[in-house]
Amino acid sequence: MRVVLLCRYDGSGYHGFQIQPNNNTVQEEIEKALKKINKKDIRVYMSGRTDSGVHAYGQVLHFDTELNIPNEAWKKALNANLPADIRIFGVTTSNEDFHVRYNSTRKTYHYKLYIGQNVDPFLLNYVGQHKYNFNFEKAQKALNYFIGEHDFSSFCSKNSSVEDKIREIYYFNMYYDKTNPRVINFDVCGNGFLYNMVRIIIGTIQDVAAGKYGAEYVKEILDKKERKYAGPKADAAGLYLKEVIYNNEEINKFIKEGLAKYENI
Amino acid sequence: MRVVLLCRYDGSGYHGFQIQPNNNTVQEEIEKALKKINKKDIRVYMSGRTDSGVHAYGQVLHFDTELNIPNEAWKKALNANLPADIRIFGVTTSNEDFHVRYNSTRKTYHYKLYIGQNVDPFLLNYVGQHKYNFNFEKAQKALNYFIGEHDFSSFCSKNSSVEDKIREIYYFNMYYDKTNPRVINFDVCGNGFLYNMVRIIIGTIQDVAAGKYGAEYVKEILDKKERKYAGPKADAAGLYLKEVIYNNEEINKFIKEGLAKYENI
Repeated sequence: MRVVLLCRYDGSGYHGFQIQPNNNTVQEEIEKALKKINKKDIRVYMSGRTDSGVHAYGQVLHFDTELNIPNEAWKKALNANLPADIRIFGVTTSNEDFHVRYNSTRKTYHYKLYIGQNVDPFLLNYVGQHKYNFNFEKAQKALNYFIGEHDFSSFCSKNSSVEDKIREIYYFNMYYDKTNPRVINFDVCGNGFLYNMVRIIIGTIQDVAAGKYGAEYVKEILDKKERKYAGPKADAAGLYLKEVIYNNEEINKFIKEGLAKYENI
Repeated sequence: MRVVLLCRYDGSGYHGFQIQPNNNTVQEEIEKALKKINKKDIRVYMSGRTDSGVHAYGQVLHFDTELNIPNEAWKKALNANLPADIRIFGVTTSNEDFHVRYNSTRKTYHYKLYIGQNVDPFLLNYVGQHKYNFNFEKAQKALNYFIGEHDFSSFCSKNSSVEDKIREIYYFNMYYDKTNPRVINFDVCGNGFLYNMVRIIIGTIQDVAAGKYGAEYVKEILDKKERKYAGPKADAAGLYLKEVIYNNEEINKFIKEGLAKYENI
């Protein structure tokens, strides 16, 4: 049986999602919990990796099991065996041809940017920092250049082995936080993202907003297709994997409902 | 010269404010920073201690120094030498007969209580948890019994050596958080608070809200003047020292303005 999970985590204390030797990761914690329940090793698959310090509102996972446990009981058993900064807030089952990574059609990332010299102590692990002037209008202009289909070679870590660097961004919104006037939020939705792509895009927008170069230069950076022309990657702490959408209406409904009633976990 | 500081800190990573051997504390960090700047040991005084894991929005501190540095420069120098989870956001000077602890006339504490089995991972260090049903009306009734002047012996840690246990609570408000329907906020303002008093009061209100006993029983607990009759102390993570008021109009203006423009630090 294939079990699909909705998972939220505070990435501050982890070296990212993906399991690695000698570092604590979200995947390791989930596989430890699954092993306790299943009494054997179980591999868990993710919709997309998150780096060290990056968070997830709505990470989607799947694993295969022979155990026949009701969804609610899976949720309880997993949360009882997971650290409190990783929570499972939705459980469903799927056909074995559904894969959380390969069947996704769009992903949305969220980014929180704190404008100021001194980040609010309570937000340290949850925002990126922008120490300079932030020209919202210029940033908006820069941001618009990313929407649509582009070769994002300039906005991809050099460590990536992916060959096809063409991705489409469906929407990209920027807005002041309702509760904190020093925080600017970004939501970027696309058919897929290259390694570090969101963070390099935000870092480039920060450069434009600070007046380092004009918004029009973003078009040039895209055209140049080389990492060195884009801005630095923005802080990991501000990035959140927000939502994943699939070519599967049932799973999409499950995710939408799970996110909507998150507070009831 | 006596220098007065407005200080905000995330207490998650500290064993409280007050310096102690073998544990990291907020006071130790501030005195380390002061020593670097003054090139000698400087004692810092606090308006009120905060326990391990307890936070401060508006802690007030003072220290004496022979250095003559403008207020803005003190702020920059201190923040440059402090960890990012402790921020100085206001600096002024006072007469040497002003003392942040002995001249306070009222203090306000804030408490954030999360209602649910699974605390939102992003709020873990910033809320207390209430796992049961929370009857808001009953809690409101219980809360009203605390307002006014009472002997708070039942709501004081047994470790306290203070003899006079009479304190006055001026107001005590409870309201749902605007951004998160699972969070209930409390603001309690009084002329002074005994050791663990706010946390034991909140814990007792939680007992009433969960239906462990009736709201009227709070009056009995007060009358009994013994710690064992009150509820358990609520989680440290939900508690914040919010604001201190003094018998000194200039200092009060300094605090009010500092808190109002906090976002501009």
